[in-house]
Amino acid sequence: MVSPASNARFDILGIGNAIVDVLAPVEESFLSRHDMRKGSMALIDAETAERIYQAMPPGQETSGGSAANTCAVAAALGARVAYIGQVADDQLGGVFRHDIGAAGVHFPTRPLVGGAPTARCLILVSRDAQRTMNTYLGACVSLGEAEVDVDLVASAQVTYLEGYLFDPPAAQAAFRKAAAAAHAAGRRVALSLSDAFCVDRHRAAFRELVAGHIDILFANESEICSLYERNEFDQAAAMARQDVELAALTRSEQGSLVLRGAETVEVAAVATKVVDTTGAGDAYAAGFLAALTAGRGLAACGHLASIAAAEVISHYGARPQRDLSKELAALAT
Amino acid sequence: MVSPASNARFDILGIGNAIVDVLAPVEESFLSRHDMRKGSMALIDAETAERIYQAMPPGQETSGGSAANTCAVAAALGARVAYIGQVADDQLGGVFRHDIGAAGVHFPTRPLVGGAPTARCLILVSRDAQRTMNTYLGACVSLGEAEVDVDLVASAQVTYLEGYLFDPPAAQAAFRKAAAAAHAAGRRVALSLSDAFCVDRHRAAFRELVAGHIDILFANESEICSLYERNEFDQAAAMARQDVELAALTRSEQGSLVLRGAETVEVAAVATKVVDTTGAGDAYAAGFLAALTAGRGLAACGHLASIAAAEVISHYGARPQRDLSKELAALAT
Repeated sequence: MVSPASNARFDILGIGNAIVDVLAPVEESFLSRHDMRKGSMALIDAETAERIYQAMPPGQETSGGSAANTCAVAAALGARVAYIGQVADDQLGGVFRHDIGAAGVHFPTRPLVGGAPTARCLILVSRDAQRTMNTYLGACVSLGEAEVDVDLVASAQVTYLEGYLFDPPAAQAAFRKAAAAAHAAGRRVALSLSDAFCVDRHRAAFRELVAGHIDILFANESEICSLYERNEFDQAAAMARQDVELAALTRSEQGSLVLRGAETVEVAAVATKVVDTTGAGDAYAAGFLAALTAGRGLAACGHLASIAAAEVISHYGARPQRDLSKELAALAT
Repeated sequence: MVSPASNARFDILGIGNAIVDVLAPVEESFLSRHDMRKGSMALIDAETAERIYQAMPPGQETSGGSAANTCAVAAALGARVAYIGQVADDQLGGVFRHDIGAAGVHFPTRPLVGGAPTARCLILVSRDAQRTMNTYLGACVSLGEAEVDVDLVASAQVTYLEGYLFDPPAAQAAFRKAAAAAHAAGRRVALSLSDAFCVDRHRAAFRELVAGHIDILFANESEICSLYERNEFDQAAAMARQDVELAALTRSEQGSLVLRGAETVEVAAVATKVVDTTGAGDAYAAGFLAALTAGRGLAACGHLASIAAAEVISHYGARPQRDLSKELAALAT
């Protein structure tokens, strides 16, 4: 049973790691010198974060976090959005809280007092616009079941979970509690696989979750291939089609493929000058879910997803800088 | 007596308010609703900072501070640069310290422990690229004579002071100590008037300082007119010519005028797409001083100043994003 949208207070509830991004441009040699895998996300401890930060060029700080980015973009597109994530009671936590609130996202999670500091992600942008991320989880490690308000989950059409949330140990329980609460209320649960290496770290848990508890799956090529341990995208896509009600699989400049039952919709990418790919997948999910929860068809969902992704990769940082409020209404279908 | 450049450890020592900027785009109506004077800098208390921040759209944090921006740009141009300014022992202080260090600027000032937090400036950028600034001085109020290391001053060809430093009460003494130490070592002292309203607040002190202790003066039209209480730029410029050895007077897109004794050099602005004027004057001073301390002529100084200003106004934020390291060597004279 799926509850009607009309009784939902929110369209989307995101749950994720609440992170402040520090972006800086680097040469490729910086990445190899620091043993970083270009384009991926690595978890680092406080000491390594300090060492990398010391070596980095001057940075630009903006609020980030994968699901939080999705929430900010979805709100910019006009969706009603809430977010659960753990920041600390410190300056960067205040920056995160300000930005997500100012983006129009309801953010009720209380800050952590007396624990680890607010998480930060050191994002190195190379000249080809690829971003390489190094995340110090900090306060995010404290996110657990207690932070999941089941009434809030029940009030949202879609609860959206980021795969990165599988990294901090207590969050998997939060994840499962949220999925159960959503389904008990007749709502849907969406998951983004986030990163191929994140899938590697948690493959068994992801497979079980995707098959048993996820309605809508977002992944890029390498993530979906990693999840199903297939070299061929088509084979992995076919397996996703079996597992979930709806899968949106992104292929960078080749656009995306939306699968629902026997249905397949090919979506073109929206052309833009690519400056920084940080947040591309997050923005895609935002556009898709904003259109879906507004009752639009799959082609429209995919198109709005592509518009949002194109906006975010056209500048530094993962949150939109252009007014996106008219884009949903302007969709053809 | 002026010491030869050859025995200087640094080309430029900047002294200023150490500030982290929070930039966000706003409509003009935001400025009027909050009683702000477009294009100017206002001092605000912690409570007002909190109120404006609450009302602001999502922001982007970058290190700022007028003289600190000048130092970062001058270092990017290849000058040897040091900076004195007061941050707190907090997260934003760490961001400021990282960024100025990563820019290649020597920053020996110890952070303030147990006092006010690191200063921040809420910068509202309107669609016409004008920035309106609201500064909460925080830890900057603690900067005084004790922070001025006279050996460091003596080791720099030019000590560069920002006019904004007249706002925190203890800084005027630091200012005078630095000027005296520089002259005792046969070095030169430069001042930027910073802001017409800042000149209004401290006109008598500025007039006395400029006439008695400043060798190189930077000002824009409204600042120099405010200093000498003249409506006509030409009259104010003539008075500046009497007061200081060298004056560089900027006139936005009309370029700038460099005056030295009977000599007058007209400098054209460098054309660019203007996105955000934050830091334009700071970058101008950086280019000018980097060329001057490298022994270049006035026309070359003005041209490098214009190149640096054009780079900084072509994007969000006051620190350079393009590689400027070849610009000094590429100058004609």
